[in-house]
This record gives sequence, C-alpha cells and structure tokens, in this order.
Amino acid sequence: MGSTVLQLLLLLAAGAAWAADDRQVYTCNATQLLSPELVAEIRSYAPVVQNIIDYVLRGPERNRTYEELAKFVDRFGARISGSRNLENAIDYMVELLGRQELDRVYTERVAVPHWVRGNESAWIVRPRMQKLNMLGLGGSVGTSPSGITAPILVVRSFEELQSNASKARGKVVVFDEEFVSYGRTVEYRENGAAAAERVGAVAALVRSVTPFSIGSPHTGWMNYQRGEPRIPCASITVEDAQLLRRLQDRGIEVHVHLIMDAQNLPLTTSRNTIAELKGTTMPDEVVLVSGHLDSWDVGQGAMDDGGGAFISWRALALLRRLGLRPRRTLRALLWTGEEEGVWGGRAYYERHGAQPEARRLLNLVMESDLGTFRPLGLRLAATDTRARCMVAQVLRLFGSINATQLTLGPDGPDIQPWVDAGVPGASLDTANKEYFYFHHTDGDSMTVEDPTNLDLCTALWAASAFVFADLSERLPRP
Amino acid sequence: MGSTVLQLLLLLAAGAAWAADDRQVYTCNATQLLSPELVAEIRSYAPVVQNIIDYVLRGPERNRTYEELAKFVDRFGARISGSRNLENAIDYMVELLGRQELDRVYTERVAVPHWVRGNESAWIVRPRMQKLNMLGLGGSVGTSPSGITAPILVVRSFEELQSNASKARGKVVVFDEEFVSYGRTVEYRENGAAAAERVGAVAALVRSVTPFSIGSPHTGWMNYQRGEPRIPCASITVEDAQLLRRLQDRGIEVHVHLIMDAQNLPLTTSRNTIAELKGTTMPDEVVLVSGHLDSWDVGQGAMDDGGGAFISWRALALLRRLGLRPRRTLRALLWTGEEEGVWGGRAYYERHGAQPEARRLLNLVMESDLGTFRPLGLRLAATDTRARCMVAQVLRLFGSINATQLTLGPDGPDIQPWVDAGVPGASLDTANKEYFYFHHTDGDSMTVEDPTNLDLCTALWAASAFVFADLSERLPRP
Repeated sequence: MGSTVLQLLLLLAAGAAWAADDRQVYTCNATQLLSPELVAEIRSYAPVVQNIIDYVLRGPERNRTYEELAKFVDRFGARISGSRNLENAIDYMVELLGRQELDRVYTERVAVPHWVRGNESAWIVRPRMQKLNMLGLGGSVGTSPSGITAPILVVRSFEELQSNASKARGKVVVFDEEFVSYGRTVEYRENGAAAAERVGAVAALVRSVTPFSIGSPHTGWMNYQRGEPRIPCASITVEDAQLLRRLQDRGIEVHVHLIMDAQNLPLTTSRNTIAELKGTTMPDEVVLVSGHLDSWDVGQGAMDDGGGAFISWRALALLRRLGLRPRRTLRALLWTGEEEGVWGGRAYYERHGAQPEARRLLNLVMESDLGTFRPLGLRLAATDTRARCMVAQVLRLFGSINATQLTLGPDGPDIQPWVDAGVPGASLDTANKEYFYFHHTDGDSMTVEDPTNLDLCTALWAASAFVFADLSERLPRP
Repeated sequence: MGSTVLQLLLLLAAGAAWAADDRQVYTCNATQLLSPELVAEIRSYAPVVQNIIDYVLRGPERNRTYEELAKFVDRFGARISGSRNLENAIDYMVELLGRQELDRVYTERVAVPHWVRGNESAWIVRPRMQKLNMLGLGGSVGTSPSGITAPILVVRSFEELQSNASKARGKVVVFDEEFVSYGRTVEYRENGAAAAERVGAVAALVRSVTPFSIGSPHTGWMNYQRGEPRIPCASITVEDAQLLRRLQDRGIEVHVHLIMDAQNLPLTTSRNTIAELKGTTMPDEVVLVSGHLDSWDVGQGAMDDGGGAFISWRALALLRRLGLRPRRTLRALLWTGEEEGVWGGRAYYERHGAQPEARRLLNLVMESDLGTFRPLGLRLAATDTRARCMVAQVLRLFGSINATQLTLGPDGPDIQPWVDAGVPGASLDTANKEYFYFHHTDGDSMTVEDPTNLDLCTALWAASAFVFADLSERLPRP
C-alpha cells in the first residue's frame, strides 16, 4: 500500500507548487556563470529549435496533438484508477505508441486504489427542499443505504471548527472556506472529514476548491487518519456553501440529507506507460518528459492531464519523424494513478530511484500537469545556479513563440520524488489562470483545449527536451 | 393567452437588445439642444444626487439591497411561473413593501404559463455510456415514460439542418451552434425544436446559449409553431455538443437516450407587484422602475432578475426614508412571468397602455434585467435627440460613482411594449460581461452579486429616477 506519510508529503509538496501564483521570473548573467563555449553551444541550437517549432506549427502535423488528444478522450472519457476504462485507454496508448517507430514501448505495473462513486445525492431538507450540486470525494466511504439526515454546522476554517467543537456532535460539518490558492485551500478537501470526525460530526461537506464557479462541484481525493473512524465526505458548490452559511448566520436551522454509495475496493493493478527514443552517444543518460494518463471520473480528463500526457509522447514521435535523435535517451512517461496520491510516480521512483547511479543517469525530469494553455516557458526545480542559468539560456531559443520565461518553483507531483532526491525538474508553465475553474469537474473537456496552444506546448516541450538531452554538458547539481 | 406573434416580436426585440455588445457611448452638445435654464436645472440636482449616493453607500443601510436580496432568494430559491413558490414570494414582497411606508402597494393579476420540469436525463448510449448534463427547455413537451432512444444528427446551423434534411428523419437533432451573441444565438433555443420537427426529427438537443461553460447546461423558454407536432427539446452543455459533433465528424454513429417528464399545465394566475411613491405636484405623471420577480426553476434567480427587482423597490423605499418625494409619481413594478415570454409586461401594457393619455402620463419606463454588476450608466431608447441629451446631462451627475455613460439601444423585455408605443425607456447598464455565463443556470445565485455593486446600482437607479420624476420638463417625444 506504500507509505501514507510519504503520500501526504507528496501531496503537500504538489500543493505548494500550485500555491505559487506569483510568477518570479528568473534571470541570470550567463557570461558570469557559464563558459563562453557552453553559451555558444546553447545558441547553436537555434536553428534546430526553430525547425521543430516550424514543423509543429506549420508542418503537415499541425493541430495533430489536439486531434490525437480529442480522439483519445472522446473515445474513453473519464479514466479513474481501478476502472476498466483506464486500462483500455492504456492498451490504446501502447498500440498508438507502437506505431510511432520509437525504440521501445512498454508498461510497468502499479498497484492503484479502486474507489467507485456509485449513486449519490445531497439535499437541503429543512427549511425547504433544495437539491445540492455535489460530488463525493475520492476515497470517501459511503453512507448507509438510507443515507444521513442531520443538522449542519457551517465553519470557515479548521480554527472555527475547533472553537465550535462542542456544537459539532451529530452534525454534518460544512466547510465554507475561502479560496486562497489551490495549495492552501485543498487542505479542506483533503483533511476536512478527519477534522470533522474528531469533533463528532457524522459527515462533512466541503466547498469546492476553486476561485470561480457556475454551480460547479469539484471532486478530488481526500484522506482519513489511520485508525480513526471514517465519515462520508462530499464536495458542494461555492454557491451552495455560501447559501448554507448565510442561512446559519440568520439563525435558521438547516438539515441536509446525504446519500452516497461510494466504495473503497481492494487495490488493483494499473500500468505506467513508457516510450523511448534512444540516445546516440549517451544512451544510458535520460531526459524524461511526462504527464498522467488517469483522470477523475467526471469530465474527460482532457486538461488534467490528457494534455500533459499527449505533448509528452508527441515530443518523442515528432523528433523521430524529423530524424532528430539526441545524444541522451528521451523517455516519455504516461503516469497512472496520479489522482489518488501519485501512485504511478511513487512506484516508478521506488522501482528505479533507489540507487545513486540511477538518479545520476536521470539528467532531468519534466512534467506537465497544470494545463496545456498558451505556453510561457518552464518552471524549474534546481538548486544549482549554473543549472538555472543553463535552462534560462535554453529558453532564450523560444523567442519566436514568446515562451522564454523561466520561473523557479517545484514541479509536478509525479516527478517530485526525483526532485526531492536532487534530480533537476522542470514543468510546463502556461497562462493557466483558469485551470482551477475546470479542475476535477465535468468542464474538464476538449472545450478548454486549443489546437494552436497544444502545438505551441508540444513544440516547447519537444525542442527543450531535445536540447537538454543533446547538450554536451548535463544540467549540473550541487 | 395573448398574441403569439406579439410575444415572438417582443422576444426578438429583447434579443436584439442583448445582441448589442458594442457599447456606443452617446454624447451631445447640451448648449445647442437644451435651454440654458434646463441645463442649469439639471445641474442643480447635483447635491441631492450626491446625498442619495452617500446615503446608499455610506449610510446606515449600506449593503441593505444585498442583504434583503439574499434573505429573499435564500428563502424562496427558484421562482418559476405557475409555482406555489413564486406566489409565496410575491406574498412576501407585498408584506415587505407594506412596511416601507410607501403610498400604495398592490398587485395585478396576470395569467401565466405553468410548465413543470419533472424528472429528466439524457445519455449517450452508443458508442459508450455517458451521462449528458442537460436541462429540459421551458415549454417543451415530455417524452413517453420510456423515453426516446435514437441516432443523432449534429448540425451547426439552421442552414446546415436544411442541407441535411433528408438525414434527419427519426433522429435526435443536435444543434451545436457557435455563440455569437445572446440575441442571435438564442434563436436555436427558441426555434430549434420546430425546425428539427419539420425535417422529421424525434427530439432536439440545443447547445447552451453561453460564451463560457464549466459543464453548465442553461435552460430557457422555447417555442413551437402553432399547429405543428411538438417534439421534446432540451439544452446540453457546450462541451457535450462539441463532443457529439467531433464523434459525428469521425464517422462514429452515436445514439442518445432522452427522458423528460415535462408537462405544460393550463395557464394559471400570478401577479405583478406594484408600489408607489406619490408625486407632489404632478401625481398623475409616472416614472416607472422595474425588474422581474419570477425566475427559472434552477439556481436562485438572484441575477435574473432578483437584482433588478430589488434595486427598483429599494429606490422608492430609500427616497421615502430620505424624505425625497419628486413632483411626479414613482412606481416600482416587480413583473411576473417574464421568463416564459414577458407575460407580466404584456398584461400590464394591455391593461394600461391602450389609451394615448395613459401613454402620455407615463414619462419614462426603466427596467433592469441584465444584471446588477458595477454600474456604467444607462441605456436609452428614445428617438428624440433632446430627450437623449437630457438623459446624458442627468448622467453627468454620477461622476462620483463613475456611472456617467449613456448608450443608445432598446431596453428590457417587460417595458418594450411601452417603448414600441413611443414612451422613452431606460435600462441599467453594467459591466455585465459574465452575465450569460450564469444565465438560467444553477450558478445564478448570490455568489455573483456584490454588496457594493448592488448599492451603486441602487444609488444610480434611485437618484436618476428621482431626477427624471422631479424635473420641471418631462423627457420630450417626437
């Protein structure tokens, strides 16, 4: 089952990344930090980078990332861990990747959770009947078949819950927390049920973690504390959470009815899907590009994270088609079981990251899991200042698509174990202001994707990975 | 039942207003068009306008429009025509208005449609199962109890439907129309079913009329052609309409299952709610401020049109409390049955608008039905250039709240009959870019309302209505 503590740390780390809403653009004086030869070498990649950009944006495969992604998500729809749908989607990808003339396509088995939503609904039943738009949270236990009917206690924070602990017994605790950032606000989704249970609540309803809503409930994973009783937990909309709070503030007693058939079934087996373009002179060294193939069980998982997965395999496929093979190996990783706590990413690190030599051979881990909107550049997790400066120099090659920006900060959740172990990590940085509007909702569909933006992301992803994999110097580490 | 043709014309006129996305700011040379005395008189209202603004924004009733609106919509929720809920809400308003020390509070009976949604759902059943987020359209007939299962034909326009008429028989026609503007795009919601029926379709699904979606279905009224058979019609989300189109474009045969319990019951009786502040010296002349009290049966109807109704009665109440009584009578109209085709507005005109004298005594009709966001000024329907210039001059008094903008264009649907008969009409103009994001969805709630914006709207509404009702000259007509 893996370590729950590690899982929690990973989630928190991932959350911290997403909290970094302020973009701090990184600049460096390359001539001070890097040798003139290295600066010149990086500059010499300008024509090949432009060649890749031109091929993706204006070549015969223009719009292809969008079209392939649409075909995939339209065919399979939502792909939650444990579902037959996800495994069918993985089979499809193995077959699709097999047709790209890459050097190796294979899968690695990963144990993943198997949570099943079942029928569910929530209602205000007093002072009047009103259906609540809701989504049970992943990992939640269900209610009894007849459901739970109880008065509510609305709180804005864990602190307010503690101050009102004596009022919580037998209640449904409603968290009406303000959205600050995903990283900070998601705590209520993750740990709200545990906190409510500890003060005697019978269920928890958590305001969806989003800055903007059109009556939209957002699902997501939640955690119980080991050994403590488990109460059902669902998300409700921003609008309904605020309604419940206003009713309570007016002294009106509100009762809700919650019914959830949710079930936690035994762990099941899924697969990370892996494809490689073998390096010419340093084939044992690797630059990894990645995104996760699994999704939530609502929407299509086009944004989270079909886009990230598809720009990653597309990068390898188009380099192959262009006959561009870097010195180091390029590896595309399509993670599984991300949504339930980074199961694919952890399994991969546990299997491959134990030896220092394995970590040394992995030069750079790249992940896209915050949307494939208009690309701005890369975010980088690397403590070495020369490594930062090298990446900044490489990004200068992307002036023609206006994606030259380097910001510092941690990366995607699936590559985090490697980053924590000192491997440089980079993530795709895009104009993703609206990402959390759609996150884990029925709105996560091809409608939020744009063919040209997907081409731009593909071009940046493929060309930057190529340069990092081909440079004579690897990214330095302290 | 009134004239269906008139109803259609009204809807089209209202639609045209909403299509005017381009704001053309109107300016005039007042010294050329208006007498120096009139210009001076309008300027002399500056202190009283500022007094009203200060009272609303900084007085003891600051935020009160928001609080009263929240109390109202939280208590009653959605208020569709024909529902007990709407009539209870009207009773509540009569009582609330009765406590404002106005001169007259009364209701007038209006026959309104009584459409009941009932249970409903739609699914893709081939090539795979997927629930479609949908809302049956108001006025639609239901399906048989077992529903309809049929292949689909997706079209982008009425023209594309005609070109493919031979393929439509026995199909569910899906309209995947692009959003251009509400006024133009709403045609598919209103007339899609009739067009589909004429080419032999068994049902119609219409992409929601919105520029932005988070998996959000938008309901609304639709029309059948008199004497033609009626097929069921529902809205689906932008995302799902696009999905169905992509599947069809790939040559994949898609079947959907639609089940709707919808029923059109006999017309029932509702009421327009009316309150008056009697004029001091010209009590027979009237300036009317208005919004509609009914809503759709989803969301809370806070934006459409609780806000418009509440700034209207609040205008009278706060002038009363400030001891500001204009020369002409101020009348607040809370319309009923707007959503099904302007039933309250038509009934009021039919009852009161027949005589030229009645139309002469109505100096100005004002309506707010496009949101109570940050106010920009007024939109005006008046053909007389001096009338336009007078309104522009009055709006110059609102510089302190940055709401001085006059744009030309038609007004709200409920006052349209008067405007068509030559009475000047004004509507509230706000920064309502997101209005149609929430329109007729579960997202139409207090969350989209802001206490300060509601105060600003109330202040502009009350003070401008006061000036128009108090000026020595009425707004001229040709």
